[in-house]
Amino acid sequence: MNSPADLRPPDFDSIVDAARLLHGVAAVTPLLRSDALDARLDAAVWIKAECLQRTGSFKFRGAWTNISRLPAEDRSCGVVAYSSGNHAQAVAAAAMLHDIPATIAMPQDAPAIKRTRTEGWGAAVRSFDRNAEDRIELARALAEERGCPIVPPYDHRDTIAGQGTVGLEIASQCRALGIVPDAVVVPCGGGGLIAGVATALKTAMPGVPVHPCEPAAGDDTKRSLEAGRRIVLTGPVRSVCDSLLADTPGELTFEINRRTLAPGIVVTDAEALYAMRIAFGDLKLVLEPGGAVGLAALISGELPCRGRTVVAVASGGNVDAEIFGRALRDPDMH
Amino acid sequence: MNSPADLRPPDFDSIVDAARLLHGVAAVTPLLRSDALDARLDAAVWIKAECLQRTGSFKFRGAWTNISRLPAEDRSCGVVAYSSGNHAQAVAAAAMLHDIPATIAMPQDAPAIKRTRTEGWGAAVRSFDRNAEDRIELARALAEERGCPIVPPYDHRDTIAGQGTVGLEIASQCRALGIVPDAVVVPCGGGGLIAGVATALKTAMPGVPVHPCEPAAGDDTKRSLEAGRRIVLTGPVRSVCDSLLADTPGELTFEINRRTLAPGIVVTDAEALYAMRIAFGDLKLVLEPGGAVGLAALISGELPCRGRTVVAVASGGNVDAEIFGRALRDPDMH
Repeated sequence: MNSPADLRPPDFDSIVDAARLLHGVAAVTPLLRSDALDARLDAAVWIKAECLQRTGSFKFRGAWTNISRLPAEDRSCGVVAYSSGNHAQAVAAAAMLHDIPATIAMPQDAPAIKRTRTEGWGAAVRSFDRNAEDRIELARALAEERGCPIVPPYDHRDTIAGQGTVGLEIASQCRALGIVPDAVVVPCGGGGLIAGVATALKTAMPGVPVHPCEPAAGDDTKRSLEAGRRIVLTGPVRSVCDSLLADTPGELTFEINRRTLAPGIVVTDAEALYAMRIAFGDLKLVLEPGGAVGLAALISGELPCRGRTVVAVASGGNVDAEIFGRALRDPDMH
Repeated sequence: MNSPADLRPPDFDSIVDAARLLHGVAAVTPLLRSDALDARLDAAVWIKAECLQRTGSFKFRGAWTNISRLPAEDRSCGVVAYSSGNHAQAVAAAAMLHDIPATIAMPQDAPAIKRTRTEGWGAAVRSFDRNAEDRIELARALAEERGCPIVPPYDHRDTIAGQGTVGLEIASQCRALGIVPDAVVVPCGGGGLIAGVATALKTAMPGVPVHPCEPAAGDDTKRSLEAGRRIVLTGPVRSVCDSLLADTPGELTFEINRRTLAPGIVVTDAEALYAMRIAFGDLKLVLEPGGAVGLAALISGELPCRGRTVVAVASGGNVDAEIFGRALRDPDMH
């Protein structure tokens, strides 16, 4: 699957090249602000709205970059991926747009919208039990049967380079606005998005701390950063943030992240749901729980932002109506 | 209030000048698309996301332009407005940013989010009974007491010029994308937004039909266009689209609209709510009922769009959680 070359971190030029591959294919998502949110937090908060990206999350950037860089003969029979849902949709979409088939292993408990939309992009979905089956072994078996490559969700230099274009856009949008953020906060599962963003910002906006934010129940990156080595959480990770359920950082992503990231931040499920509600009222954006943890870090005070300028990446918006309704039923809106 | 000069339609240059006034103050809202939505409708649909505008609707553009163009001595004591909620917030925000007080007459049944946020901008709110009191007379009395001007919600050339900047942006965004829409559909209450948009597009993107869309219960503009004169609906207008409850077109707006608009379209409340749900899932946008009627016209087939390229203005996103939850509870999502 990953040749040794794939485990070299992508450099800045590789991200710039990914931006070229994505030009006219992916959306340049807006950097949004809200007077109500700024007043609420006494801060200047900018939201990088990746929920408005194609397929509803940043994952399309990495999937497209990865598949585009596969040699044509390697991808001619199609691609395989494993994913809780956002990478699934992204690979399915990128495969269809490349006119090749996709087979995706998805956990049985993935949100309905993620599964339906992955199938809507023409992908064959193979369900698995998150607690009983090993998703990577399953993907390897599917790839071997079909003679086609796996598109890794985060631990691959091309996937990371694609996600890094989020960082390039943040830097150029901040420049256009004449602002230099005091911090950037990014939702973190396997660590691919933040590895790409931090790599891009290290060159394009140097000196700005980039914090990973995780659900409290899945704080593997925070702990790993503190320990200086990859920690594996024991027991299943349970959180409403279905897109951030990694139990250990990626090998390549952690190699990048341990050198570049500011300390990790965690938020509770209730804080993530409350942030979805604030995004609904203040920003008019639909965020999924995992996409809202960066904003939740600011609202909860876990990342102090009073009097500061902060960018929060809102990484996705694929959420079932039922969970969204739950987030809205909190009593103290407005 | 309105001097005779105010009843001259704004010309294209006046809209370009409004864009200059709004530069760096209002957001340039994105023109968004969704693969899922396009597949659903077999069309190329572009959404002008004014729900992402400051104060959550396009109204900020008109309010800011209007207040900015008031002679400084006229506005020194503040401004007065009447509004069901979006113009209220917009005037309150524009007044606060100009450092002058605002007094706003709002109907008792305005959505809670609209009233709370108007007060959040520091405005004094005077409630009235939509069915028992005349809002214009009330505003005149408030203005006289305070010795300050009224900022009209639509029937004023500066308000219309501000709203017209939505049209300028649509034209320049379409040009950048290399597309020429077959039609543009715009939510219509008093008609200020569409009068501005149509005026801008007549010069910036000539020949493209611009359709007003209204709730079926408040179809005064559709009927007036058909009759060639301003029709006044009899009886109170009842619809979930609280921002589109006009019972007759504005005098100046209709003078513009009767010369420039394509036929009117109406949608039911159920169609507006269903469009909110599609915007939630496909676009990750929060739309209010009145902001969703343009999209509803496409989804319902009232404006046929199969095989065509269409721009729908999503004019606002100020909706209470309860109504949004109702829109999400429809059975056939995804």
